[in-house]
Amino acid sequence: MIYGPRDIRLEEVPDPAVRYPTDAVVRVVASCVCGSDLWPYRGVRPTDEPHRIGHEFVGVVEEVGAGVRTVKPGDFVIAPFAISDGTCPHCRNGITTSCQNGGWWGAGDEPGSSGDAGQGERVRVPLADGTLVATPEQPDPALVPSLLTLSDVMGTGHHAAVSAGVTKGSTVVVVGDGAVGLCAVLAAGRLGAERIIAMSRHADRQAVARAFGATDIVAERGEEGVASVKDLLGGIGADAVLECVGTKESMEQSLNSARPGGYVGYVGVPAGGPELPIEKMFGSNVNVAGGVAPVRTYLPELLTDVLNGTIDPGRVFDLELPLDQVAEAYAAMDERRAIKTLLRP
Amino acid sequence: MIYGPRDIRLEEVPDPAVRYPTDAVVRVVASCVCGSDLWPYRGVRPTDEPHRIGHEFVGVVEEVGAGVRTVKPGDFVIAPFAISDGTCPHCRNGITTSCQNGGWWGAGDEPGSSGDAGQGERVRVPLADGTLVATPEQPDPALVPSLLTLSDVMGTGHHAAVSAGVTKGSTVVVVGDGAVGLCAVLAAGRLGAERIIAMSRHADRQAVARAFGATDIVAERGEEGVASVKDLLGGIGADAVLECVGTKESMEQSLNSARPGGYVGYVGVPAGGPELPIEKMFGSNVNVAGGVAPVRTYLPELLTDVLNGTIDPGRVFDLELPLDQVAEAYAAMDERRAIKTLLRP
Repeated sequence: MIYGPRDIRLEEVPDPAVRYPTDAVVRVVASCVCGSDLWPYRGVRPTDEPHRIGHEFVGVVEEVGAGVRTVKPGDFVIAPFAISDGTCPHCRNGITTSCQNGGWWGAGDEPGSSGDAGQGERVRVPLADGTLVATPEQPDPALVPSLLTLSDVMGTGHHAAVSAGVTKGSTVVVVGDGAVGLCAVLAAGRLGAERIIAMSRHADRQAVARAFGATDIVAERGEEGVASVKDLLGGIGADAVLECVGTKESMEQSLNSARPGGYVGYVGVPAGGPELPIEKMFGSNVNVAGGVAPVRTYLPELLTDVLNGTIDPGRVFDLELPLDQVAEAYAAMDERRAIKTLLRP
Repeated sequence: MIYGPRDIRLEEVPDPAVRYPTDAVVRVVASCVCGSDLWPYRGVRPTDEPHRIGHEFVGVVEEVGAGVRTVKPGDFVIAPFAISDGTCPHCRNGITTSCQNGGWWGAGDEPGSSGDAGQGERVRVPLADGTLVATPEQPDPALVPSLLTLSDVMGTGHHAAVSAGVTKGSTVVVVGDGAVGLCAVLAAGRLGAERIIAMSRHADRQAVARAFGATDIVAERGEEGVASVKDLLGGIGADAVLECVGTKESMEQSLNSARPGGYVGYVGVPAGGPELPIEKMFGSNVNVAGGVAPVRTYLPELLTDVLNGTIDPGRVFDLELPLDQVAEAYAAMDERRAIKTLLRP
């Protein structure tokens, strides 16, 4: 439960049950804390009233409603950070985060949302057919961290790369060395990028970025960072810049790092950020694409690559705690002692 | 010559000559007035000192410098609104408007720009190999208006459509019924759009839009216009919105008319416009792409389609005047008595 700034509490709540025919109940095997959970934790976004929190989890189906067709009790499932029916026009267009009937975790008990959230033991999952993706068989426990990243950070990094049009031979800059930024490095490499410059000042994160395929690291920020990027890219900037932070400074750095005609693929939640400078974009033909990532759409293809060992995004977890230390999980990420914390109920 | 707001004068100036080996001198056959010429004409953009004006022209090469290889005296040529060398990294990326050595008409006599401008009798064309495109043979005079649109408005409308990802089956909204907006309708149809909704309140422009392939016309603006568009598109908005105006209102209408995950392709010169609302874009995954159109890049393929009669963009000209009535040409467009005025020296 989040009560307000830096006030996360473990509480006993009633066990969930199937409430609508399209629901499933999932026992959580692993969940985690998201960089975006830190916005309410830090008070950047207000918490109007206490509610359950956490939108990334994997687990085992315990019960399904009469209308559920694609998952059954015993299935190991991955839950994306947004609930979606998979059938509305927006879902069919691949934008599951704009589902006409969907909603969010910890948000209420309407048919398309759930009062339960990922940082718990059990969750009522609405619209289970549209929302959940089951693995073909029970996964190797060693794969659980990587599977958990498909709830959010790996799919979100992938969305940045897809939105920016990363393809074979692209030159790419990744702004942000949190879990999403690191996954964006991995996603860019998976899509065939030739050059991947990770912006990072932290040795531990630089090491993960290298392991994920970064060809260069730039530690400087702001104008100096842009100058270093251009030096590495023949003076002209990158084909694709993946903005994985969400601040005014990170977006400005991203726009300045793209070549004329290039793309900024952005997935950093704008934290009260500024508006985009249209005249500058106009003059340089730098394009801006992205937004809240429809990870459900990407889940099947990324799942295949996790299961066959092509990608190992679970390396972004550098701290694992039992659920009863959830408050410490937040503090460790807030204080940058951990990139991302995995929680085991 | 433009002297200031609503002060356009015909003056005698020295004949141009080849100044650099990469120059050509072109005798103008036809030129025209651009919607963007109206910004300084109206005083929205200041005119610091009097200068020649006009960035759209076609003509016949009279003389070339020793270094010019691709055009020769006697060739009929089309001049894009930007000067570019065709060889720098940005030109090779197709963004000729960001050419490292290029420049603009009426802007000075450095090697990459020209003190001459299109609304005149003769023009020194810098970087002639990169800038000019010659027709394979002398064109039918009836094709001159359509060829002239390849200097700017047809290529610019096409850039809006390409930037917005228009493809076979797309649903498209075109915001703006000036020459660029009308050409954007034509470009969208050429790229295979299935549904093209033109936003227009003027019967004469609606008629051209229909002739260019618009399947629907919406006369309302603002929120009412958005509602009408959504009614026509099953309530969900368009795959691609082509923003061909450049005001705060037109961009807002464009963003609101796109479906989640859709694109706004924008080519309207931002007239001191506002910045883009990033939080709204983030939530809906509406992407914004475009900018000052690299029409030189598109010229060969569009030229082919003009010459073979596939497209007839010259229909945007509804007034033709001799060059000595250039002031009236501006007034007619400013007062919306003409969509676009063609000038004959």
